Amino acid sequence: MKVLIVYAQPEPKSFNAAMLRVARETLEGAGHEVRVSDLYAMGFNPVASAADFSGRRFPDHLQYDREQKHARANDLFSPDIAAEIEKLLWCDFLILQFPLWWFSVPAIMKGWFDRVLVNGVAYGAGMRYDTGGLRGRRAMIATSTAAYPGMCAPDGLVGDLDVVLWPLQNGTLAYTGFDVLAPFVAHSVNYVEPERRTQYLADYAARLRRVEGEEPMFFHRLADFGPDWRLKPEIEPRAAGQRRR
Amino acid sequence: MKVLIVYAQPEPKSFNAAMLRVARETLEGAGHEVRVSDLYAMGFNPVASAADFSGRRFPDHLQYDREQKHARANDLFSPDIAAEIEKLLWCDFLILQFPLWWFSVPAIMKGWFDRVLVNGVAYGAGMRYDTGGLRGRRAMIATSTAAYPGMCAPDGLVGDLDVVLWPLQNGTLAYTGFDVLAPFVAHSVNYVEPERRTQYLADYAARLRRVEGEEPMFFHRLADFGPDWRLKPEIEPRAAGQRRR
Repeated sequence: MKVLIVYAQPEPKSFNAAMLRVARETLEGAGHEVRVSDLYAMGFNPVASAADFSGRRFPDHLQYDREQKHARANDLFSPDIAAEIEKLLWCDFLILQFPLWWFSVPAIMKGWFDRVLVNGVAYGAGMRYDTGGLRGRRAMIATSTAAYPGMCAPDGLVGDLDVVLWPLQNGTLAYTGFDVLAPFVAHSVNYVEPERRTQYLADYAARLRRVEGEEPMFFHRLADFGPDWRLKPEIEPRAAGQRRR
Repeated sequence: MKVLIVYAQPEPKSFNAAMLRVARETLEGAGHEVRVSDLYAMGFNPVASAADFSGRRFPDHLQYDREQKHARANDLFSPDIAAEIEKLLWCDFLILQFPLWWFSVPAIMKGWFDRVLVNGVAYGAGMRYDTGGLRGRRAMIATSTAAYPGMCAPDGLVGDLDVVLWPLQNGTLAYTGFDVLAPFVAHSVNYVEPERRTQYLADYAARLRRVEGEEPMFFHRLADFGPDWRLKPEIEPRAAGQRRR
């Protein structure tokens, strides 16, 4: 596999940094190619703006997604965006690795989505979900939380983890065509004993060694929806974010 | 009311910019005080890092949330964070206004959460949900989407909007103690006729004129959960993100 790990944690002594080392060693040890976008180390700029384009189709009114499409066709992306798009299209397995902050990714990674998952490459007219621009690739979230496992149970304080991660797993990864593998989650890493953290790392390595054979999570295909963009009457809602009213 | 609008859109000609103007005029016209954090105009830095603190409790290992608590007690926040905390504690009604990007807020606003909703002020030991640090305040999301309304139906392509917004409305706003009002959502603003956009703005103004009397959305109170952080057996799950397995 060609593996791209997009990584967002500023502290080299953090548990996430240890997870990153484990992932790289495990995957390279199994013969896979690994590239890492260490967003903090790169000083990655997460703020989408007009400065992302060296030329504009609509110079008087920034419509970011339309400029992305224009920039893609005319090679007008700022170099940092172009470099990340190249890595994205190179990989066949994407790992998003981050500590869960405010039920989501750190801002520096959100900006990677905003700026790198561009219209005309990752999604666009006729390109979403199973027809998304990144189809044929797999993706996985690897994260740590400050929550106890019970908090992330379906009836827990934080809520169903599949719901918490819906904007990421459905709205970002599945939307752009990835087959999404179940997330790897290390819970309450700051509140457990060192032995538990060591076990999490061993579990993560074991998971990555067998990841090639894994079945992806279920998300509805585009064909499950009618012309009104709602599930066809004969389709049973099976994903975390969809239900019959 | 003292209203803080946190705003994240770079383009002054955008529909979101028009929403911001409508909100300010409507609320000030009704006698409320309004302050705006225009994150793009401010050049707000969304990247949480060690540079956010002028002194550290643990200088050798960045533990961001613990440094927040220490910085709060010792007045060690960088000036941009301190200024936003002051506005946050000043307001009794917070509006988050943004275009929905990747089922979430733009990175620049995510960074406002990461850096400004600090441990020891917004949340902390014994401070979350109805005991959160910002309790007694109200909050509302005001957003625009590129999705048709049917896509955001409970059985729509994007999924139930209450699920899509769960990390924001439950995980960020309710978590820190806000009473959360129903979101104001203008759908597919780039694909509708100008008359529809004008109507959205009129609807938004009308909504804001009556917002003081609104009942907040339902989220479970801390007391609904047992010592295992899961809903007590006698509590029926009623929020979008919680269910019995």
